[in-house]
Amino acid sequence: MNQEMISVQEAKQLILQNSANTNIAEVTLQEANGCRLAETIYAPSDTPPFDQSAMDGYAFSFDSWDRKSALIISGEVRAGSISPEIAQSGYAIRIFTGAPMPPGTDTVVIQEKIIVKDNTIIVTDEKLAKGSNVRLRGSQTKEGEAAMQAGHLITAAGISFLTGIGINTVKIFSKPTVSIIVTGTELVMPGEQTGEGKIVESNSPGLVAALRQIHISPAAVIKVDDDEAEIVKAIRNQLQQDIIILTGGISEGDYDFVASALQACGVKKIFHKVKQKPGKPFYFGSIKKTSVFALPGNPAAVLTCFYEYIVPAISHYTKLDYFKKLMLPLTGDYQKRKGLTYFLKGKTRDDAVSVLNNQESYKMNSFALADCLVELDEEKEFYKKGDRVSVNMIL
Amino acid sequence: MNQEMISVQEAKQLILQNSANTNIAEVTLQEANGCRLAETIYAPSDTPPFDQSAMDGYAFSFDSWDRKSALIISGEVRAGSISPEIAQSGYAIRIFTGAPMPPGTDTVVIQEKIIVKDNTIIVTDEKLAKGSNVRLRGSQTKEGEAAMQAGHLITAAGISFLTGIGINTVKIFSKPTVSIIVTGTELVMPGEQTGEGKIVESNSPGLVAALRQIHISPAAVIKVDDDEAEIVKAIRNQLQQDIIILTGGISEGDYDFVASALQACGVKKIFHKVKQKPGKPFYFGSIKKTSVFALPGNPAAVLTCFYEYIVPAISHYTKLDYFKKLMLPLTGDYQKRKGLTYFLKGKTRDDAVSVLNNQESYKMNSFALADCLVELDEEKEFYKKGDRVSVNMIL
Repeated sequence: MNQEMISVQEAKQLILQNSANTNIAEVTLQEANGCRLAETIYAPSDTPPFDQSAMDGYAFSFDSWDRKSALIISGEVRAGSISPEIAQSGYAIRIFTGAPMPPGTDTVVIQEKIIVKDNTIIVTDEKLAKGSNVRLRGSQTKEGEAAMQAGHLITAAGISFLTGIGINTVKIFSKPTVSIIVTGTELVMPGEQTGEGKIVESNSPGLVAALRQIHISPAAVIKVDDDEAEIVKAIRNQLQQDIIILTGGISEGDYDFVASALQACGVKKIFHKVKQKPGKPFYFGSIKKTSVFALPGNPAAVLTCFYEYIVPAISHYTKLDYFKKLMLPLTGDYQKRKGLTYFLKGKTRDDAVSVLNNQESYKMNSFALADCLVELDEEKEFYKKGDRVSVNMIL
Repeated sequence: MNQEMISVQEAKQLILQNSANTNIAEVTLQEANGCRLAETIYAPSDTPPFDQSAMDGYAFSFDSWDRKSALIISGEVRAGSISPEIAQSGYAIRIFTGAPMPPGTDTVVIQEKIIVKDNTIIVTDEKLAKGSNVRLRGSQTKEGEAAMQAGHLITAAGISFLTGIGINTVKIFSKPTVSIIVTGTELVMPGEQTGEGKIVESNSPGLVAALRQIHISPAAVIKVDDDEAEIVKAIRNQLQQDIIILTGGISEGDYDFVASALQACGVKKIFHKVKQKPGKPFYFGSIKKTSVFALPGNPAAVLTCFYEYIVPAISHYTKLDYFKKLMLPLTGDYQKRKGLTYFLKGKTRDDAVSVLNNQESYKMNSFALADCLVELDEEKEFYKKGDRVSVNMIL
């Protein structure tokens, strides 16, 4: 441990300072779901595209009517078609919701407020005004108007809206591409036989699921042994990605080859080792536009570093806030070692947070029950029940 | 309007009472991400599967050591291999994190707390106790023990945990299958030319995005004209789904064929028309295990009914709560019509909620900005700034 360890806050700052932060991509609206808009959208045309009836009823010209006389029904127009005739004074055209107003009409009386007699209608709507029950062309959105501002979050309703005004693709702040490289000769793939000192590789399944939780599918998931040449090759093959996540092999053991492999690949080390528990040997580096996160191999350290460091780096690209940060009172006392920030598996309930049992970084049973990480200050040693602590939600 | 309209509360109850509510499926852990477990998982074996070193260091037998003498280094064992030799009294074996403890050893001294001299080590760790720095077999999870309870939410950490104990598939409360049928002769598909009374079909893009927001990909999206035979055919083709969503054609116009088409398909009407705005003509029915939601064609009514009625029906299957419900003060006065529940596009900020402009159900620009629906009571007419109202989040 001849290297200077840095604080969690310094590590978080260095990551953001040394990360690429913007990929703008033009995507279909469905691909843009949940993304932030990187351009202001201007309406390509008026919406509605024509004056249309808002109701089922009868369309006629208000000014040429004396409010008393019956109107003669002349034809009909339904949604999706156009009126074959122009309404003359004294005539009304049967119309349905969404149908274009026939030329010469400007007002609709709804079908519940008329009396039909032979081939005429008598209007019984006392309050009917010129333009009633008509949606005017452009009354939602006018051609050329800013329909959605840059930076706006694209929701399902936003997709419906943009589709309706004739937009099919948009520029968004897109997700970074992410590859995962797990290292460790002791690892066998899920479903394979363990034994002979082997354990099941559970870091990549956790990382893949955590990435999918924030709507990212990893570009690649690679497993390599503790072999420097193999690790170098795996890293080189992924340097086109925005983010590479490695697990294992980053401590100072005789078989920890990740740091030297990264150096051999030309990755510039930004820091190695953070004053935290779990995940002290955490490494961050960069090469061109690629950020490299090398995490210690313990499953709890892997996911803790993912939520604490990699998610904020991804937010830097997407401009999205994925998880809430809260301040909540502890439900019990807690004693820790001074000099390290602790990230503890926690569970919130009734506006308080409990630290779960089994915090050792190789134990995942507590993490499986957690909905948050409780962040305890580097400099503090004792926490009392009721002390307010930082709670970083992970769900 | 010769039918009895029911209240929003009645409608919500009737939907849950008349919905199938459980599909249990066995899926891979990745597919189970974010789902609720429908069985209790018992550990198939001990984890860790063998006693292993928690650190890089030297393993030896604590009881056969006098706390003073140097120990002779005899061989090494790294993660993923097994020790070729049994440790004799007076000997220590070089060991790395995760490596199995060699037979005859029970304690590890970390490499930072020894002095190496020739081929021996002197232990400088005063506090070293028997069993130090060893993770015992089964110390996380013991064979046969309940590793995760039925009803538990499967998170990324849960997937890492379950993978690590040798679980590859689990039974979950699975998502319902959903098909979308949009009706309307006036509709053209996005990208097609409008004109001649046509408008762009924007309901299915909104519904698809809203379903994806809760991690459901629709089984089918079908567009049909206002033609009863065509609608009947489309419905019949989707009766194997858990949920069918129709839009449009459910009012009482001469070209509204959805209700009669549903009857022709044997769908039992549970209700038709709800005292609400938007979405008054909303219909719900069922046939065998299939629930049928027929929504009015206005885009705002479609998504309002989706979030208010269809999402709770989906929750009934998955046992997941998708969106928060809050009580927040209004930022302004609001006047409404008595006798209808209003669902207004709203935006929360600083623990208060604003009703957005442009609430007409054909206008989607306000919905595109909304993060919630503000639910105003059927019986109330006037709301004052500061009145606390129900806020149904949609993000």
